[in-house]
Amino acid sequence: MALSRQTLERLRIDHKESRGFRLSDHDTKWLPDQLEAMPKDERRASGEQMLAASKAELEAAQDILYADDRFALLLVFQAMDAAGKDGTIKHVMSGVNPQGCSVTSFKQPSAEELDHDYLWRAAKALPERGRIGIFNRSHYEEVLITRVHPEILQSQKLPDGPRDQGFWRARCEDINAFERHLDRNGTVVLKFFLHLSKEEQRKRFLERLDHADKNWKFSSADVKERGFWDAYQVAFEEMIQETSTDWAPWWVIPADRKWAMRALVADIISTTIAGMDLRYPEVSADERTALKAARTALEAE
Amino acid sequence: MALSRQTLERLRIDHKESRGFRLSDHDTKWLPDQLEAMPKDERRASGEQMLAASKAELEAAQDILYADDRFALLLVFQAMDAAGKDGTIKHVMSGVNPQGCSVTSFKQPSAEELDHDYLWRAAKALPERGRIGIFNRSHYEEVLITRVHPEILQSQKLPDGPRDQGFWRARCEDINAFERHLDRNGTVVLKFFLHLSKEEQRKRFLERLDHADKNWKFSSADVKERGFWDAYQVAFEEMIQETSTDWAPWWVIPADRKWAMRALVADIISTTIAGMDLRYPEVSADERTALKAARTALEAE
Repeated sequence: MALSRQTLERLRIDHKESRGFRLSDHDTKWLPDQLEAMPKDERRASGEQMLAASKAELEAAQDILYADDRFALLLVFQAMDAAGKDGTIKHVMSGVNPQGCSVTSFKQPSAEELDHDYLWRAAKALPERGRIGIFNRSHYEEVLITRVHPEILQSQKLPDGPRDQGFWRARCEDINAFERHLDRNGTVVLKFFLHLSKEEQRKRFLERLDHADKNWKFSSADVKERGFWDAYQVAFEEMIQETSTDWAPWWVIPADRKWAMRALVADIISTTIAGMDLRYPEVSADERTALKAARTALEAE
Repeated sequence: MALSRQTLERLRIDHKESRGFRLSDHDTKWLPDQLEAMPKDERRASGEQMLAASKAELEAAQDILYADDRFALLLVFQAMDAAGKDGTIKHVMSGVNPQGCSVTSFKQPSAEELDHDYLWRAAKALPERGRIGIFNRSHYEEVLITRVHPEILQSQKLPDGPRDQGFWRARCEDINAFERHLDRNGTVVLKFFLHLSKEEQRKRFLERLDHADKNWKFSSADVKERGFWDAYQVAFEEMIQETSTDWAPWWVIPADRKWAMRALVADIISTTIAGMDLRYPEVSADERTALKAARTALEAE
């Protein structure tokens, strides 16, 4: 059960409509029509079937992506804490061959990274041709956490200048140009914003507190960061307005129901690969002759 | 059905016995007792059950390896062409979370790599703490292909000196010291030699030739390299004799039956992780107090 064109258009923020993008127009519990139309108690199982089907397609598609060796796929995940970035990566991607897939988690930058511009470490982590690269957080943190906490800029040793609206817009412009370059050179960029409600984050934080054995995953700093919720929502909204380009639109994925989020993300990835012009490489005439000789030699052994 | 201690000891080449190691003592079709004792037509299904069980253990173990964050696991695969390195990595590892697993395929070194010593690129690709790193081929190529084709050394721009037995022994000594350093610092090294017979390689090459659509995977150069079979066997034998150390023994895996090879490799990996002293990190008293305050704040919202 693949997603309809309408659903894909609903979730994808196209460049031409991005100026008017409002997070509040996107329900964090939204479901595609084919799930919404079902009796409530059947939805989750259907979503899980969708996920399984997309994962199977993805595993097959990965083989030809690798063989074709002209394109790479870059998946970018951004979200508030507890929206399910790690879980989505785990559940959507755990069937793929790790030989063709790399995941990079972008954390607080190191001293070496701070001595370079903020796209440097992203560029270093890009997938090779034929591979899938996943960014768990990404260069977009530079218009998110850095925007919400502009004091972070001090450690970046940037040239002097105002840190005003134009500064942040210029960052988005540079990011857009970076991604346009990637797209032009064979890296398809898929960007997912996992859109969580504030109430659902509260519930999930409380659940994490209930599981003492998993407390190591949760720090009191996470709750502190929740205090900046509204500032983050503004930053996400402007990020999507400014960086939903023709070559790399944002996908806004309702995140309050994990099973639905995972099914949507998996479908979008497999639909994207299916739409790429992938093929097994042809064997040249010379190599064909050499292979024929190889067969004769092997058979004669 | 885990492997018996006898089986593990049969497959692991311990340092003290490594001097007398002979490839010819290791049957490429060998099966562990519990499979050998079965009716022939039940063996394969049992092997596949073993693989599935080990994969499930591995997926669970990966979580705690990641949480514990003190150890890394490095898996090294070496073998003749068509022994099944890629397939083993795919079938054994495709259930793991790619976020905690990286695979590096070592191909012909780049100009930048050749301007460094041969361990440099291996060191760069090592897994971080908490992760599993997989080397598809590795630094051992430097005592394998480079040994069989010593003209490769010319591109390495090494200091002058004889390229005699002592030269290759010194390479092994450096590799052993490198791995001892890794082991001392928390990276557990598991080295697999997939042991294929010459006749089985011939069959697999012919099969690849039969599947024209997969011909891109196969080049006539592979058959040419088969001409050096005996020299490679000598190189593998000496590699295992010289680099089966207490901290990183070689595992010699019979490779003529893919299903058996995969079950053995998966079991050895999951048994190894099970034997590591892994635990979830404890939450400090201070952080516990902070988490309690966080709960109060969240509940009051």
